[in-house]
Amino acid sequence: MEVPFIPIKSLSIEGFAPYGEVIDLDKAEHFPINNGMCTRYNDLATVELSGVEPRPLVNIFRGKPYDIPLHLKMVERHPLGSQAFIPMSKRPFLVIVAPDEAGTPGTPLAFLTQSGQGINLKMGCWHGVLTTLEKTSDFVVIDRGGPGENLEEYYYEPGFLVGFDD
Amino acid sequence: MEVPFIPIKSLSIEGFAPYGEVIDLDKAEHFPINNGMCTRYNDLATVELSGVEPRPLVNIFRGKPYDIPLHLKMVERHPLGSQAFIPMSKRPFLVIVAPDEAGTPGTPLAFLTQSGQGINLKMGCWHGVLTTLEKTSDFVVIDRGGPGENLEEYYYEPGFLVGFDD
Repeated sequence: MEVPFIPIKSLSIEGFAPYGEVIDLDKAEHFPINNGMCTRYNDLATVELSGVEPRPLVNIFRGKPYDIPLHLKMVERHPLGSQAFIPMSKRPFLVIVAPDEAGTPGTPLAFLTQSGQGINLKMGCWHGVLTTLEKTSDFVVIDRGGPGENLEEYYYEPGFLVGFDD
Repeated sequence: MEVPFIPIKSLSIEGFAPYGEVIDLDKAEHFPINNGMCTRYNDLATVELSGVEPRPLVNIFRGKPYDIPLHLKMVERHPLGSQAFIPMSKRPFLVIVAPDEAGTPGTPLAFLTQSGQGINLKMGCWHGVLTTLEKTSDFVVIDRGGPGENLEEYYYEPGFLVGFDD
């Protein structure tokens, strides 16, 4: 069975808007605090918390790198909360999302971040797992804790080949 | 007027416990996710959100470096929420806190983080401003947004000289 190809595009605020937010300091609201000794880049992600007794979780994800092209077989979603990824390195990473089509994910889209950009996935957005490139990389992740089942997975058959256009 | 001296100590979980949490991956709960391709360091900070319609704010603070010894004159606190600081660099930074004594801060304590450590200040804990060393440094900061006055400042006279013991 032929595996369909998904080209990787540059991440943009507009292109990513249906799926979530791009966290980009160059475009973020910011202002000086502490007598000018600090710049506050303010309120970078809309944290969505749903379900019973939700609370924000602050985590660090340490992701091993993947090779490109990538054979994508699985996407997942978190029905009870958003999930923000802020890279602690300047290395770009791969963001895969998919539109929801009546409860299952449609054809995925793949985006490469620009150096330093992060993302915040909307509550319920289908997405691939954290996909770092080149080196093991740390991310600050803000998502949802509390009771309830906050993970759904979906397996594509035969999946997709995600890579750069020639 | 003589300015009292405050020696900088090493940050420890136990010593910092009255003021907040030390975020230290070496001591944090963690487990593999994504078929072993990622380690999740889970639930690193107790996010406290109080007052009317609070919400978590995700921010980046870009702090200019201070010189040691530091003449500390002001501390502040956030009565409506906690405030976590996760360094995006490996550079240690200075953490100044003070016990509350019937609504005003007592004698401050100063801690130097170990490389990579972050902190989460408890709601209402008196603290100095973000005090980076050596270079301008970025921190992911999770604090409290929403209506209400979430900042109190207190000025010491003549302040304190914060430095390393000889």
